Amino acid sequence: MSVTAASGFAAAGVAAGLKSSGKRDLAVVQNLGPLNAAAAVFTTNRCKANPVLWSEQVITDGVVSAIVLNSGGANCYTGTRGFQTTHETAEAVAERLAISAGDVLVCSTGLIGEQLDLDLLKVGVWDATLAIATGDAESEAAGLAAAEAIMTTDTRAKQAAYTSPAGWTVGGMAKGAGMLAPGLATMLVVITTDAVLDSKQLDTALRHATRVTFDRLDSDGCMSTNDTVALLGSGASEVRADLDEFTVALTGVCRDLAEQLQADAEGASHDIAIEVVDAATEDDAVTVGRAVARSNLFKAAVFGNDPNWGRVLAAVGTTDAEFDPYGIDVAINGVQVCTAGEPDQPRELVDLTPRAVHVLIDLHAGDRAATILTNDLTHDYVHENSAYAS
Amino acid sequence: MSVTAASGFAAAGVAAGLKSSGKRDLAVVQNLGPLNAAAAVFTTNRCKANPVLWSEQVITDGVVSAIVLNSGGANCYTGTRGFQTTHETAEAVAERLAISAGDVLVCSTGLIGEQLDLDLLKVGVWDATLAIATGDAESEAAGLAAAEAIMTTDTRAKQAAYTSPAGWTVGGMAKGAGMLAPGLATMLVVITTDAVLDSKQLDTALRHATRVTFDRLDSDGCMSTNDTVALLGSGASEVRADLDEFTVALTGVCRDLAEQLQADAEGASHDIAIEVVDAATEDDAVTVGRAVARSNLFKAAVFGNDPNWGRVLAAVGTTDAEFDPYGIDVAINGVQVCTAGEPDQPRELVDLTPRAVHVLIDLHAGDRAATILTNDLTHDYVHENSAYAS
Repeated sequence: MSVTAASGFAAAGVAAGLKSSGKRDLAVVQNLGPLNAAAAVFTTNRCKANPVLWSEQVITDGVVSAIVLNSGGANCYTGTRGFQTTHETAEAVAERLAISAGDVLVCSTGLIGEQLDLDLLKVGVWDATLAIATGDAESEAAGLAAAEAIMTTDTRAKQAAYTSPAGWTVGGMAKGAGMLAPGLATMLVVITTDAVLDSKQLDTALRHATRVTFDRLDSDGCMSTNDTVALLGSGASEVRADLDEFTVALTGVCRDLAEQLQADAEGASHDIAIEVVDAATEDDAVTVGRAVARSNLFKAAVFGNDPNWGRVLAAVGTTDAEFDPYGIDVAINGVQVCTAGEPDQPRELVDLTPRAVHVLIDLHAGDRAATILTNDLTHDYVHENSAYAS
Repeated sequence: MSVTAASGFAAAGVAAGLKSSGKRDLAVVQNLGPLNAAAAVFTTNRCKANPVLWSEQVITDGVVSAIVLNSGGANCYTGTRGFQTTHETAEAVAERLAISAGDVLVCSTGLIGEQLDLDLLKVGVWDATLAIATGDAESEAAGLAAAEAIMTTDTRAKQAAYTSPAGWTVGGMAKGAGMLAPGLATMLVVITTDAVLDSKQLDTALRHATRVTFDRLDSDGCMSTNDTVALLGSGASEVRADLDEFTVALTGVCRDLAEQLQADAEGASHDIAIEVVDAATEDDAVTVGRAVARSNLFKAAVFGNDPNWGRVLAAVGTTDAEFDPYGIDVAINGVQVCTAGEPDQPRELVDLTPRAVHVLIDLHAGDRAATILTNDLTHDYVHENSAYAS
């Protein structure tokens, strides 16, 4: 079901003591080959965490032998000492797995501006690599342990997998619950495949898949400093995958994980899909959807089961997308509340009690479309994010 | 203290029955001359309410004899019937005051997508113009009644005034508590002056004043469809004002009103000033300040008295302003928590219990600065905006 669903991968998740709760907080996923192909995309935030700065260098040659991830600290805005911590973590993994540190991706998540404890990290690396060497590290249980180790405010581990009739598999794990926004979300995602593909092919497939999945999840408008989505290819199935078929499968796995992130977003009581249709361009559709997804007033109204479509249009009107402001239609959960800028069906007909909410915005400006996934703004969101300090 | 502080203005605020509470909901301010000079700025939202569409036409010749404002309904996305309602409201005012409907500004605030009751509006106009004709309409009490009539979720009326040693006065009233954002905020503001200035001079002064006051108030990132700031000049003081001195005074009155809006923002428990210094350009400073002002995570942290400066930097990093991401300093309430991208003073030293919060961001990229005013994200904000339907 997870990073161990594809053959050629070993995983472990251990408790290194970085989390005060004592729960699992460090994961290692090793690519056992025969290939060591990889691709990755990172946050577009200019304030990047040290592990992102490190991993951007690692990925340049398309070769990755292992990835190490920790929760309990973002290692962001921690200066040269923080970068050294990332470097030494990669070195520790490399030494234990007899690989090159330059082939080890590093991911961290947690509070910004606090140094990670390198000694604890090293103990965690020791325990995780020991588990990989001695345990049943290619099992479903090992994959789950890794998925659990990257959780922060997540209430459940996120995993997905797909096996092609052609004989190859793609699977992955994700974490992320807050700071979920554009150009990825606050998320760490590791996807593995045993399909025979080179790093350039993996990169092409990954960029397509993230563009229409993780990049369209905008839970709270806040972009993280640590976002990383890594795709590792072992080639262990010995099946050369058709790139188009693989891209479709990868997109499906990414969408599955993105929807799990949305469903577990901090404090959310509604999962909102904002579908923008008849846009002049796909970018316009994304821009309009994202503007609505970032309207606190609209999101608070959904929390209160109030189909306040005026707040949808007020958000649409802040964009420079192509449309006639008085030619827009809006439907909420199947009830057309606004047609061509005038009230249509009574808002009282809209039922917002289900968790799933569908907002359909027809711009009447073309034939392109996009859907943005977001959540409502709730008391629990405020609570979790005013109290969060881990 | 208000729109009646300057000579040559009469005001009234009455209960027309638009608000279910029975409170005052319609105001008229009449310019008694001798001048009828005016300027106005409107929301930059492309989805504009009918009164904005109307008033944009009225202001083109710089002549305004009266302004009528109602709460209890935004008259936005109400189609041609809604525009007709705005038109007939202006006609009713014009007929009663024996002026031209083309010289009557109209403002509305409230729920989007519902028709206003024209009969109630007409009764309100009748009562308000009767009060102007028969009452002490140039009194402080009359100004206060008008200020009360434009309140929606505001908990108090907002008024300000300044009298120049040169002998002229500028005063005004404002309303706005939610949907407070850029390119104005959800606000209706009427400012009056008895200085002798023509409409072109009023326009110059008003655009300068709003650019550095209302345009830098960003309470919740949501831009309204109805924002209007109108400035009416009667010339009744018979004193020709120095334009620079007038602009400074007007800016002071606008800043006073903007701070009253911030202090009364829906559900807020902190008033946050985000001061960005050493920016390459003023636009950069505004962009960075606004990005932080729109970070739900940062705003929720402030609500919880948590000086989470990582969330400040994560927001700064989403902008394209000129800076070295690892050369930024951040201080919160006087404690320098981050210097050149590394932790400095312990965050525990920051006291966030006072309502006033000062975030100082030094970009080290130039010598320009700007301050954005915002609020924290609280349970009460979510509550008010999930329950709001009036």
